[in-house]
Amino acid sequence: MLSLRRSLRGVRGVSLYIAPSTRAVAKGLAAQAARRTAVAAPYSTKSVAFTADTYGSKVSRDEKYKKLDDADTKYFESVLQDTNGLITDADDLLFFNEDWMRKYRGQSQLVLKPKTTDQVSRILKYCNDNLLAVVPQGGNTGLVGGSVPVFDEIIISLSNLNKIRSFDDVTGILKADAGVILENADQYLADNGYIFPLDLGAKGSCHVGGVVATNAGGLRLLRYGSLHGSVLGLEVVLPDGTIYNSMDSLRKDNTGYDLKQLFIGSEGTIGIITGVSILCPARPQAFNVALLAVSSYETVLKVFAGARRELSEILSAFEFMDGKSQILARRHLKLDHPIESGEYPFYVLIETSGSNKDHDDEKLETFLGNAMEEGLVDDGIIAQDETQLRNLWSWRESLPEVTASAGGVYKYDVSLPLADLYGLVDAANEKLVEANLADLDDESKPVVDAVGYGHIGDGNLHLNVCTRVYSKEIEQVLEPFVYEWISEKKGSVSAEHGLGFQKKNYIGYSKNDVEIEMIKGLKKHYDPNGIMNPYKYV
Amino acid sequence: MLSLRRSLRGVRGVSLYIAPSTRAVAKGLAAQAARRTAVAAPYSTKSVAFTADTYGSKVSRDEKYKKLDDADTKYFESVLQDTNGLITDADDLLFFNEDWMRKYRGQSQLVLKPKTTDQVSRILKYCNDNLLAVVPQGGNTGLVGGSVPVFDEIIISLSNLNKIRSFDDVTGILKADAGVILENADQYLADNGYIFPLDLGAKGSCHVGGVVATNAGGLRLLRYGSLHGSVLGLEVVLPDGTIYNSMDSLRKDNTGYDLKQLFIGSEGTIGIITGVSILCPARPQAFNVALLAVSSYETVLKVFAGARRELSEILSAFEFMDGKSQILARRHLKLDHPIESGEYPFYVLIETSGSNKDHDDEKLETFLGNAMEEGLVDDGIIAQDETQLRNLWSWRESLPEVTASAGGVYKYDVSLPLADLYGLVDAANEKLVEANLADLDDESKPVVDAVGYGHIGDGNLHLNVCTRVYSKEIEQVLEPFVYEWISEKKGSVSAEHGLGFQKKNYIGYSKNDVEIEMIKGLKKHYDPNGIMNPYKYV
Repeated sequence: MLSLRRSLRGVRGVSLYIAPSTRAVAKGLAAQAARRTAVAAPYSTKSVAFTADTYGSKVSRDEKYKKLDDADTKYFESVLQDTNGLITDADDLLFFNEDWMRKYRGQSQLVLKPKTTDQVSRILKYCNDNLLAVVPQGGNTGLVGGSVPVFDEIIISLSNLNKIRSFDDVTGILKADAGVILENADQYLADNGYIFPLDLGAKGSCHVGGVVATNAGGLRLLRYGSLHGSVLGLEVVLPDGTIYNSMDSLRKDNTGYDLKQLFIGSEGTIGIITGVSILCPARPQAFNVALLAVSSYETVLKVFAGARRELSEILSAFEFMDGKSQILARRHLKLDHPIESGEYPFYVLIETSGSNKDHDDEKLETFLGNAMEEGLVDDGIIAQDETQLRNLWSWRESLPEVTASAGGVYKYDVSLPLADLYGLVDAANEKLVEANLADLDDESKPVVDAVGYGHIGDGNLHLNVCTRVYSKEIEQVLEPFVYEWISEKKGSVSAEHGLGFQKKNYIGYSKNDVEIEMIKGLKKHYDPNGIMNPYKYV
Repeated sequence: MLSLRRSLRGVRGVSLYIAPSTRAVAKGLAAQAARRTAVAAPYSTKSVAFTADTYGSKVSRDEKYKKLDDADTKYFESVLQDTNGLITDADDLLFFNEDWMRKYRGQSQLVLKPKTTDQVSRILKYCNDNLLAVVPQGGNTGLVGGSVPVFDEIIISLSNLNKIRSFDDVTGILKADAGVILENADQYLADNGYIFPLDLGAKGSCHVGGVVATNAGGLRLLRYGSLHGSVLGLEVVLPDGTIYNSMDSLRKDNTGYDLKQLFIGSEGTIGIITGVSILCPARPQAFNVALLAVSSYETVLKVFAGARRELSEILSAFEFMDGKSQILARRHLKLDHPIESGEYPFYVLIETSGSNKDHDDEKLETFLGNAMEEGLVDDGIIAQDETQLRNLWSWRESLPEVTASAGGVYKYDVSLPLADLYGLVDAANEKLVEANLADLDDESKPVVDAVGYGHIGDGNLHLNVCTRVYSKEIEQVLEPFVYEWISEKKGSVSAEHGLGFQKKNYIGYSKNDVEIEMIKGLKKHYDPNGIMNPYKYV
């Protein structure tokens, strides 16, 4: 890595100091390996409490829904024509019933894994006709309990619908089944000189369809914009089995309401996305990643303003992490911090990507040189090769796992005006300390710490309350306090993670009554029987 | 201007040849002046036939709608509390009843110009309760007859709702009344270092709200993406007077269906947009514009592929014009072509914009040098200053006026797969010549020529059939032929101009039955009485 502190003068010129990279590489690989096993690991420990028990006072099974019987299962067998497509074994079901944070656990007795859109259509039509409730499930990497059942809903997994359908290397339009894993889609595009216009930590597990159904934002929204802009068409099975198909849409098409938009972020409540057509940009030729240490949140914002001005069209990510999240990362990953010179209150990860490495280097060096001369940056490193670059990203992407490592985590994914953004972390900590619930080192306290990181470029904070155990007491301190705080600042209670089960009752903090009525109206319009992902969203 | 042909060697190095620019400046200014008066001019000549007469065989007034009476007018007076807000004078009404292409003319007896959202709400509620049909109208620059009445619908003009509400110079979020003129919004943003993420020829007249209501694409979609990605929130008055307001939304907000998306491109059929919140990018520091002459459409595509690869993140526009459109431009503008060395089959206008002029120049010069060495570009010029840059854009932007200058124009705004795109112009010409209707110089023929230009970067062709007179005969040759041709290639019959009145019956060429049913379902859901912009869209 290039160390900025040790070579401020060098940054402005050509003679860059390059730090030995071997240890950094080892670090990153360890972090990566840890991240890869993070999802699987929890299933070996004791099982999670049923959502029906944990939240029994708030939600009960709607008895209008039919209970699954043998005749239903037989019908589904006839549709799938493959017994591997049905999961009924209790042990096997566990993986689909639980979310990866181990907060929610449903009691579904049946997972269906259709291989074609037509099978999805026949399944849904049957469920709709018979009032069988369903939960669509992608990679099950969601953070709000949206992809697991609350009670006995049938799980429809898209994991067997996993083919790339086509790619046009002139226009960059990729058409894929919903169940294609994001990382696979991006690798396929990389082989063709293109890039998926979205990236996130769960890319090794999450599905393209799930990403669209939850309107995921991720790490590069700053550069490539939201899925509402890049998704060109969808194939969606509506609750009555009707197949809506706009997969042939070109980049511009102004003939009628843009129906596909309704399904982007609909979290499986009005249809099941089975296919996605998305416009992919050319893969940048040159990437740079820098990790910077700064002394205050205000300085983070100043660095951001400078980056937008000076890096402009090549700025592709601007992430921040607070110092407390880095303490936890060091402990959990058992690694030195990439910036070795000390502990700092805030860290910023900047990525640039462009078509000309020399130009990008020059822009980045000028920007960093200015930032250091102005005293905005206390220390920093620049990745010098692909491995170092990946390692820095791995460090950032390990945070969801790090923050859950003490036992559990309450995750709040919020949008706030930039000036107020970090104030929420301070406010949450204050409340937890006041209630005598939090201590970094005292194992008797249920909360380790409330830490913050996220996508400054999008005004998106991830507040993570890292806990040793989940408890009603913590929840009562945090909610509705956190939502009220956000509402007061006119933020959103869910920037990118969605509503799911967790935030169903908190939509009123981000949406007004007219909006909520309109949302309910659309839900009823498309899913009059309410079979799709019930007890959630709205 | 920098001439490429005379300085191919220079392009690769530093010693660029700069052509005398005075004549070019004069040209551009003349073109600009001509463009500015283009909309106003037609109103001085004889009046347009009523749509009700021209299309009487296809559409008749729906007698469920109430006819305006004095009591209605009195009520509207009481709402607006300003007699200037009502237009009832026959001469004054003409401007609002006719579209600028002079193809459509309604017979409205009343134009209302509310000054507040609340007034719009009270007007709509009254109209809905009394079954009075309405047409929302922005700058009335549409190309499909969507913003003028077909019969006696009341026109609700947004022109008095014309204030910038707020601008946040940290996030780039602009909030504006719907009636703010696009050019004014962009000038306001320029003063603050930002840019409106959309630009189009009619910017001096069209409204921000109209642009959103029609999901306009324009000249820089290639760089900044569609409005579905950049609009953050809307204020919309629904047919029953309810005010939907999502103006406080931040960049990311995943709480419920993204309702605002429905109104982007809804052409006034389910609500009236009264306010727009939009995310604006930082204004690039450096712009370059080059105009290139190439020998074939295939070569246009090759130049485009190269530009995407080599100009990548700084490419902000890639426009093409066929040689025939340039012949008409020379005649109408009475000016030499910016490229003086001869007539070429195709022309390409490339714009780059970025944060570092030196870097951009180097990228553009490398790209153009390569293109010329490969024999892709026959001649070309690069604007050397702001005035030359504007002049080249003016030349391109004069085409809508140029193509209408012989008397009238049938405009087809279509999306097609790139390889097929220009084939439609050839096919249309063939049909017209076959029917003995077209000749460039023979004044007895109704059609001058069918020409093509548009946004290659978006797969968007503007086919313009330039006529001396409008006639049923021409229309019968062109329709449904053009739509069938597009449908066969899986294109869209409206890339960016919308459906309006012109294409209401042709949506089936771009949308399948399920989609059309879903669109009709939403129309009925939001406008059960059908008072909003009837006889159009779907």
